[in-house]
Amino acid sequence: MADPRFFLTRGPFTAAEIADRCGAEVVGDGARPLTGVAPLEAAGPGDIAYFDRPRYRDALGASRAGAIAVHPRNRAAAPAGAVLLISESPYRVFATAGAMFHPPVAPTPGISPAAHIAPTARLGAGCAVAPGAVIEDRAELGARCSVAANAVIGAGVVVGDDTRIGAGATLSHCHVGARVSIYPGARIGQEGFGFVPDPKGFIKIPQVGCVLIEDDVEIGANTTVDRGSGHDTVIGAGTWIDNLCHVGHNVRIGRRCIMAGLSGISGSTVLGDYVVLGGKVGVAGHLTIGSRARVAGGSGVIRDVPQGATVGGYPAVPIRTWHRQTATLARAAQTAGLGDALTAGVGLPTEDQ
Amino acid sequence: MADPRFFLTRGPFTAAEIADRCGAEVVGDGARPLTGVAPLEAAGPGDIAYFDRPRYRDALGASRAGAIAVHPRNRAAAPAGAVLLISESPYRVFATAGAMFHPPVAPTPGISPAAHIAPTARLGAGCAVAPGAVIEDRAELGARCSVAANAVIGAGVVVGDDTRIGAGATLSHCHVGARVSIYPGARIGQEGFGFVPDPKGFIKIPQVGCVLIEDDVEIGANTTVDRGSGHDTVIGAGTWIDNLCHVGHNVRIGRRCIMAGLSGISGSTVLGDYVVLGGKVGVAGHLTIGSRARVAGGSGVIRDVPQGATVGGYPAVPIRTWHRQTATLARAAQTAGLGDALTAGVGLPTEDQ
Amino acid sequence: MADPRFFLTRGPFTAAEIADRCGAEVVGDGARPLTGVAPLEAAGPGDIAYFDRPRYRDALGASRAGAIAVHPRNRAAAPAGAVLLISESPYRVFATAGAMFHPPVAPTPGISPAAHIAPTARLGAGCAVAPGAVIEDRAELGARCSVAANAVIGAGVVVGDDTRIGAGATLSHCHVGARVSIYPGARIGQEGFGFVPDPKGFIKIPQVGCVLIEDDVEIGANTTVDRGSGHDTVIGAGTWIDNLCHVGHNVRIGRRCIMAGLSGISGSTVLGDYVVLGGKVGVAGHLTIGSRARVAGGSGVIRDVPQGATVGGYPAVPIRTWHRQTATLARAAQTAGLGDALTAGVGLPTEDQ
Repeated sequence: MADPRFFLTRGPFTAAEIADRCGAEVVGDGARPLTGVAPLEAAGPGDIAYFDRPRYRDALGASRAGAIAVHPRNRAAAPAGAVLLISESPYRVFATAGAMFHPPVAPTPGISPAAHIAPTARLGAGCAVAPGAVIEDRAELGARCSVAANAVIGAGVVVGDDTRIGAGATLSHCHVGARVSIYPGARIGQEGFGFVPDPKGFIKIPQVGCVLIEDDVEIGANTTVDRGSGHDTVIGAGTWIDNLCHVGHNVRIGRRCIMAGLSGISGSTVLGDYVVLGGKVGVAGHLTIGSRARVAGGSGVIRDVPQGATVGGYPAVPIRTWHRQTATLARAAQTAGLGDALTAGVGLPTEDQ
Repeated sequence: MADPRFFLTRGPFTAAEIADRCGAEVVGDGARPLTGVAPLEAAGPGDIAYFDRPRYRDALGASRAGAIAVHPRNRAAAPAGAVLLISESPYRVFATAGAMFHPPVAPTPGISPAAHIAPTARLGAGCAVAPGAVIEDRAELGARCSVAANAVIGAGVVVGDDTRIGAGATLSHCHVGARVSIYPGARIGQEGFGFVPDPKGFIKIPQVGCVLIEDDVEIGANTTVDRGSGHDTVIGAGTWIDNLCHVGHNVRIGRRCIMAGLSGISGSTVLGDYVVLGGKVGVAGHLTIGSRARVAGGSGVIRDVPQGATVGGYPAVPIRTWHRQTATLARAAQTAGLGDALTAGVGLPTEDQ
Repeated sequence: MADPRFFLTRGPFTAAEIADRCGAEVVGDGARPLTGVAPLEAAGPGDIAYFDRPRYRDALGASRAGAIAVHPRNRAAAPAGAVLLISESPYRVFATAGAMFHPPVAPTPGISPAAHIAPTARLGAGCAVAPGAVIEDRAELGARCSVAANAVIGAGVVVGDDTRIGAGATLSHCHVGARVSIYPGARIGQEGFGFVPDPKGFIKIPQVGCVLIEDDVEIGANTTVDRGSGHDTVIGAGTWIDNLCHVGHNVRIGRRCIMAGLSGISGSTVLGDYVVLGGKVGVAGHLTIGSRARVAGGSGVIRDVPQGATVGGYPAVPIRTWHRQTATLARAAQTAGLGDALTAGVGLPTEDQ
């Protein structure tokens, strides 16, 4: 199914070969040749699909997929014709198969003559630099890095091996590790939003820290990470940040955290490891969010969150408390008999936003 | 009033000519010559203005505009000197007049010698490509497209006729229709945020779908649309998306939807046609939002929304329920007598954000 | 501590010299030489640090900083070895010291041969234009402006003296004052989100206003400011806008306002002077927010806010009312005994966002 304009396709692979790669059990004809991955409702006899959400049960039953990865508890719901790959994590089977059929393609090494590279910049072996990319004075890139079209690597920036900088992204005042992906339009290392209010305006706090991005980090499209004022702003190894997120100055994020789209962390807040922020979460400044804490989408966090806690709401409270509050309010409103005289000003865009 | 540094001005046109173009009724001197559009309080005798919001009633009475578009019910409130263009939709009259005086100016066709166009790319007749724009291998643009300065059209991307790509925008892995406007800094087609958590980090789900943008779509400045993992991410014909929005992977948006600024839709959610999302709305993943559903600004949607429903709140509920809940809580708090001992930690930025 | 790859360092300065510059009182050896600024826990004997938040009291006691700026009420908590700089605003002392040690470095004047400057553009004396920057027809820049790599100054744009345009930022249809900082990736002057719904789609409202940015404004990374439809969109002198904010068309922001990250203001809303919006605030369209009003982070404002008021919540109400509501609901839920049967659908990203 993958569009050959954009994706390389390898294979075919048999169901057994795929199962073998990810430790799944095959039920049915393991020799069936497969040529690609597809969602349940779009898959044909040459595709492998997966099922792991009850809401797609109808799609499972109707699927024409040649092979389907399912959890042991769902094998009876699968259609008769499909080879099954039984696994505790059907999604992982699907991910493995996808990577077999469509291995990521590294950009072809080479420096475009239309790139602008300062004479004092240093590039490791095997880098790919696209047209319009700018690499400024004394910047240092490791081996096999790619810098996409119109990206900017600022003066003095250091980038590790095998790191990818997306189109139009800009980096300054930062040290970036190995195997990092910076997505298109991300902004790394600009001055933080630090100031002292003053009758005559604002006195800017010099932002003389850097951004330190450890290995294996992903920074989403149009996400911004400001440099520190004294501390560095730190993104720990293996952390993944989605699109349109904001990481304020001096923030320190631990290892293997997740930050979903449109979330923001205000200055000087510290996150432990394995923290999960849902989408559109706001975290106030100077807080501590403990390791393995989880914050529900849309929440506003204004107090420290203990290690391992799950919180939600605005302001955020323990998740069960939030659900109890939501239910309490719903019940109170049902019995309050206030009628419907309350519908003004809901903020819907109509004309002329 | 339009600044001649930036806008072309045609005309003058008489009040009758304008009324004729949009089916309005003229009250007063239809032969009055008009030279431009302006808001009520800034308009002079040569301008046409419009009135359709009660909060601007004082501005209406005091306006020196030569002509004013008003709803029939508001004609008595208009100042004596103005020619009136009576219409059920005064704003539409204003829009029509604006387009008469200031017709959009297409970029002058021509390929800048400072653009970087791969030899294998194909451009239709009459395209305008600005300095610094990059068009990569095998990309195909239709007729009369414009690619603004420093925009990037990735390898293999297909773009229809009369489509405009804004400055600094980047496209990859996508098929774009005709008459589409991609605003500056928009990011289309990068990898979605798809992964399987794993003790050793995250296993990336190969993102081997595309983005499919149908005809007449608008994608706002710095908005991001991720490509699908298996499905394509789809933006239906005539849909308008504002600035700084995020559309996650595999999302399918129907026709003629509206998505206001800073809103986000998580992966695999499906919207019908004519759906309206207010500003700063978050929609969780794997949901279905029915056609003509409306979501109030700031809401967090975590359940399916039926066709035609209007919802609001966090978590979002039917809009009347939300208003009732808000009123119930307000009343309960008024009578609770908790005093003022509750003012800590409101998350205002003071010093050192 | 400032990384010499990125920052210039001046000095050393004595504690007395720093105190003298910002009117602090020295307690201890004013002749002690200092070489830089650092946070309390990282500072060594050559650094000056500051203390002004109770949560960092332990760090104060344990600090090895050579000098510490403290409020008079906290002098007893400071460690014995440190020279103290006593001030009502320790953070301002720190800011002053930072600017002494690390004065901002203006880009070296000069026009890169890899910049693309239209023959009809005019640049003042001493401008610095980086590779890949595009300056279009009839644009006019004042003296000593800097235009970073791959930024775009659109046709006709006017920019005052000493203004800095960040990497990858794009400007069109705007007049920009002196000493303004536009951060990387900001989008200024594109068309606003204005339309009339119509059975056949949307009728676009011609956006024939500009953006007017007064002196001393800061516009954060990837922030968007749309041009007006009739009015100009105005950002008043000395206002600071953080990253990833959206300012809609026709919005008028007064002088010395603060707008923290991920906030948005819908079309035609007017803010007075000294208004403060916390992070992730949404303000609906066509509202008036009075001078010195303050809006707590995460709030959704759907009604006018009077001068000097502080509001919070969604929808926003006076801040004390919001706190009372929050407390009332918390208490009601505690006594409601609804148990824990309420934990579905919290919108946390798990797999496949």
